[in-house]
Amino acid sequence: MKRLFVFAAALAATSAAAQPDASGAPSPGEIVAAARADEWADIAPDDLLVMDLAPDRDAKPRRVIIQLIASPFSQPWVANIRTLAEAHWWDGLAIVRAQDNYVVQWGDPDAEDTAKAKPLPERLIPTAEDAYLVRVPDEAQDAAGPDAAVRFAISTPNENDLYAPVTGFHGGWPLGLSERKAWPVHCYGSVGVGRNLSPDAGSGAELYAVIGHAPRHLDRNIAVVGRVIEGIEHLATLPRGTEALGFYRTPEERTSIASVRLGRAVPGLPTYQYLSTESESFARYADARANRRDPFFIVPAGGADVCNIPVPVRRKAAG
Amino acid sequence: MKRLFVFAAALAATSAAAQPDASGAPSPGEIVAAARADEWADIAPDDLLVMDLAPDRDAKPRRVIIQLIASPFSQPWVANIRTLAEAHWWDGLAIVRAQDNYVVQWGDPDAEDTAKAKPLPERLIPTAEDAYLVRVPDEAQDAAGPDAAVRFAISTPNENDLYAPVTGFHGGWPLGLSERKAWPVHCYGSVGVGRNLSPDAGSGAELYAVIGHAPRHLDRNIAVVGRVIEGIEHLATLPRGTEALGFYRTPEERTSIASVRLGRAVPGLPTYQYLSTESESFARYADARANRRDPFFIVPAGGADVCNIPVPVRRKAAG
Repeated sequence: MKRLFVFAAALAATSAAAQPDASGAPSPGEIVAAARADEWADIAPDDLLVMDLAPDRDAKPRRVIIQLIASPFSQPWVANIRTLAEAHWWDGLAIVRAQDNYVVQWGDPDAEDTAKAKPLPERLIPTAEDAYLVRVPDEAQDAAGPDAAVRFAISTPNENDLYAPVTGFHGGWPLGLSERKAWPVHCYGSVGVGRNLSPDAGSGAELYAVIGHAPRHLDRNIAVVGRVIEGIEHLATLPRGTEALGFYRTPEERTSIASVRLGRAVPGLPTYQYLSTESESFARYADARANRRDPFFIVPAGGADVCNIPVPVRRKAAG
Repeated sequence: MKRLFVFAAALAATSAAAQPDASGAPSPGEIVAAARADEWADIAPDDLLVMDLAPDRDAKPRRVIIQLIASPFSQPWVANIRTLAEAHWWDGLAIVRAQDNYVVQWGDPDAEDTAKAKPLPERLIPTAEDAYLVRVPDEAQDAAGPDAAVRFAISTPNENDLYAPVTGFHGGWPLGLSERKAWPVHCYGSVGVGRNLSPDAGSGAELYAVIGHAPRHLDRNIAVVGRVIEGIEHLATLPRGTEALGFYRTPEERTSIASVRLGRAVPGLPTYQYLSTESESFARYADARANRRDPFFIVPAGGADVCNIPVPVRRKAAG
């Protein structure tokens, strides 16, 4: 497959830095740990969704932190999610579904029953399935003029993906790309928008997180709106539902949502950072994920799919 | 990438059967449900490993059923696992590690402490890292003479995998292949053999199951010995360990193993079957996984990685 001109690789000369040396090559984790402070980017509190589930049986808190996806992707749904969080809409609702090796889903258990469904805020933005993809040249030209292609450069381009002509990373997000379109992909931890049959495209009120092997067949079929950056284990370890698609059989089996808030409404929330996907350390990390040269490994794989290169996220050290 | 002669595709004419029709194409699950009885293959009780964990907090049983991989793959480890099960070696040991989006591992918590480690049976077979791969022509010729290549035909060959020149299925197992070698791949639910640094190749006493996105970089680096075919949720929902690599910090956090037995030593065990990967229904199922035409989907992916085509397994209906 030929590289597509519009997605120029941001980082062409990465392999030299990651050559193994006689003392043993660094592991991906060691490369991330050695990244410079200026290679980490702060995540704005407005881009964080904080979901507190009811405490577990040992009264331990269960907090899930979600990073909302950045412009230009899935923005109508992201705007709706902010509206819903500000309206405290999810408070008292529940995890309704846990399907092994697939997704955990939350929202209104009565969503399908018009007589009992919780009313949605009136300010929600209409959504449409054609917004699952972003027309890259147009978007980029609108924003940046003739240098649009450069603005949308991706790092670690991969032309051997099974689900997209090219995959890569841009602004901290894993993407699929074709010549004129780009879309966020479904990896472990990705958060997407439940919907009914097309043309329904969902509002953002019903959300799911991926807890298994990347369901890449959902790409371009459902809006990806973010990813879990902390606390995914509180979702991934939930008992699986026993009805079709992993829905819970009884209300008692559901896990209650205490509250969902935007980050700025949560006092004392740490600052989270992601390793810039345009940084030299990210390029070295991605290369090391594809070619493990640390001592445990005998045969480097020679490649890594986009979901096997999770973008590193950390809490920012207190200054 | 060119197709490699030795792995002739078993099923070339699969697409016609899976064309959508005006009434809506069947989903992968519907294709499996409609498979003929003679397309399902029984799994021999000797190829089943039954692991009963201690009951959960609600006193519910937790049984995990593992299918051991078929010849010619990983046979020294599989033989050791049978020896260990017959010796009741795992009884009273524990789940020692649960790392989110990676693996759950079990065995002797004191394995690293020579003074306290549980003795292994003397009959264990030596293992070596070169057995992670099978030299296909030799193996096949030994068994089948000049028609070896035909004997090792794979179904649904895929030449666009990132981790292997070709992937496909043979005898119910997902494989990676190069011109002269074949190896089982790591997917969700795969069971592999923990080891220390090479040349240690593990004995089979320390096992893990994959509970996240397929860690394909482990292929050819660790022996895959089977897959969980029932009860994976009892492993995938275990609390994650908080030490490095997901090891549990205290003995109390571990889950105890009540017993591990071969299938034939478990009275009343159902017969399990897998959908033959050489069957027409499997070909249609794999095609439908790669190109979802059922009504929910807007854009078929056009491909599916080998781990996104899990081999269907079921309990055989009582005759």
